[in-house]
Amino acid sequence: MTLVVVGSVAFDSIITPTGRADDALGGSAVHFALASAFQGPVKLVGVVGNDFPDDRRDLLASRSIELEGLETVADGKTFRWEGKYHDDMNSRETLSVELNVFEHFEPKLPKSYRETEFLFLANGAPMTQASVLDQVAGRPFVMADTMDLWIQTAHSELEDLLRRIDGLVLNDEEAALLSGIDNTVEAGRMIQRRYELRYVVLKKGEHGCLIFHDGPDIALPAVPVSQVTDPTGAGDSFAGGLMSYLARQGNVDIDTMKCAVAWGTVMASYCCEDFGVNRMLELRLEEAEDRYHHFRSMLTLTTT
Amino acid sequence: MTLVVVGSVAFDSIITPTGRADDALGGSAVHFALASAFQGPVKLVGVVGNDFPDDRRDLLASRSIELEGLETVADGKTFRWEGKYHDDMNSRETLSVELNVFEHFEPKLPKSYRETEFLFLANGAPMTQASVLDQVAGRPFVMADTMDLWIQTAHSELEDLLRRIDGLVLNDEEAALLSGIDNTVEAGRMIQRRYELRYVVLKKGEHGCLIFHDGPDIALPAVPVSQVTDPTGAGDSFAGGLMSYLARQGNVDIDTMKCAVAWGTVMASYCCEDFGVNRMLELRLEEAEDRYHHFRSMLTLTTT
Repeated sequence: MTLVVVGSVAFDSIITPTGRADDALGGSAVHFALASAFQGPVKLVGVVGNDFPDDRRDLLASRSIELEGLETVADGKTFRWEGKYHDDMNSRETLSVELNVFEHFEPKLPKSYRETEFLFLANGAPMTQASVLDQVAGRPFVMADTMDLWIQTAHSELEDLLRRIDGLVLNDEEAALLSGIDNTVEAGRMIQRRYELRYVVLKKGEHGCLIFHDGPDIALPAVPVSQVTDPTGAGDSFAGGLMSYLARQGNVDIDTMKCAVAWGTVMASYCCEDFGVNRMLELRLEEAEDRYHHFRSMLTLTTT
Repeated sequence: MTLVVVGSVAFDSIITPTGRADDALGGSAVHFALASAFQGPVKLVGVVGNDFPDDRRDLLASRSIELEGLETVADGKTFRWEGKYHDDMNSRETLSVELNVFEHFEPKLPKSYRETEFLFLANGAPMTQASVLDQVAGRPFVMADTMDLWIQTAHSELEDLLRRIDGLVLNDEEAALLSGIDNTVEAGRMIQRRYELRYVVLKKGEHGCLIFHDGPDIALPAVPVSQVTDPTGAGDSFAGGLMSYLARQGNVDIDTMKCAVAWGTVMASYCCEDFGVNRMLELRLEEAEDRYHHFRSMLTLTTT
């Protein structure tokens, strides 16, 4: 089934304890779409400036990412982000942000996108995310991401958005902030119930994630990984894996969601293995399927 | 198969954000044995003073816990511990410790214990743990627990012990301290390889645990729990569930170990539901089996 992602396209400069990358292709929509592409085509909505090179555009197009919704602002520059990870790789600081053309991004769904059956609203202002919902025809399965900034500065707009969508992905700190509850399980449950969301997927980084729905809470681990080169984009790769799996299956029941989360977990594990999108570009589907099947058998308890 | 646990028997006074318990039956060997007893008999080695009431002894005996190895020091008092949990329940401070008869505890295996096929050395001085190994006949499957104190003050004795046993259970902070490595996965791998342990089970509390062995690393989540009343004894209940499962199966291969860890995870989840051993005393086997089967199905990924 069809899948649309709305989010950022960026150049990231990343410093980690083990190395650095300058002006690496990034942004939420890019990470999402590259991870999605293993399950099928994905339609991207985003914005770039006049400095976005044709070869990057060709690269994305070559991965079955449709770019009709990628707007180019002729007199603007592409969004740039510079960040530095601390030694434990779990926290980072932003060194500089140039929002550029992303600052006034008003996503426009091309006509061919509007009937999409699956839609992911990557992190962005809730009003902007809501404006995308206003453009869709039919009733797609919609999930969204958010961040601390919007929870703090656009709380009621975010709440309005949450009541219009099917699922939310967020991390443990964001869940605590949104719910006002420190216990992660209680926070996730509360968010799922308060906003009547079909799914809340609460990410805990190296500790895996929790799924809250109208049924017993579900916990899944992450892939055990000892070396993280660069976690930038892991959350969007996770979401891309998850949503593309659902779209490929054409099903959003809880058993499919669990597998989709597992596939997202596998995609996120690859994302962290190299800077930016490097590992995702090298990845072969068979490798990823092997890791997925290994993950599934890791979780299989066979003796009774 | 037969299972022996060597550890402490204590009276715990526990303060949590939601309540308190005074002079509650506790200690590593007690928590371990009560959790073990769901899978079959367990032989306890420990020490108490003249203040240990007969009704507590009868209670343990009634749960198929053999007490021939429970020494009573006529002119001594039972080990007492007083602790307070902080709001997040993840950290605690010791308010007072009276080691009493536990201070000079020299565990002695009764003759009927020496041929045991499974042995658990609960947290204690590595020299004391090693003295138990000197008393066993045959070659039991031995796992041990430890803590930061021994890692720091008896490092080489602990290293000697580790080279003589089959498996170690420890938490993430202890693993970092023992290995000198912050990354949890790398730390666990290193400990397993350096000491040629068949299994390292690295506990991450609410985030589940990791199993390191001669094969791919394994991650399992915890049971999602929103309310923790008292985590005292959760680690020992986990170990008791784990070891008793192995002993019941009479098998220590990796598939059995995964299930044993899952059963230990279920036991730990019950332990936290009430103060001290209260929940474990109320628990029925059928309830625990239901939670185990639910945990197993939570981890089953059915769509391909």
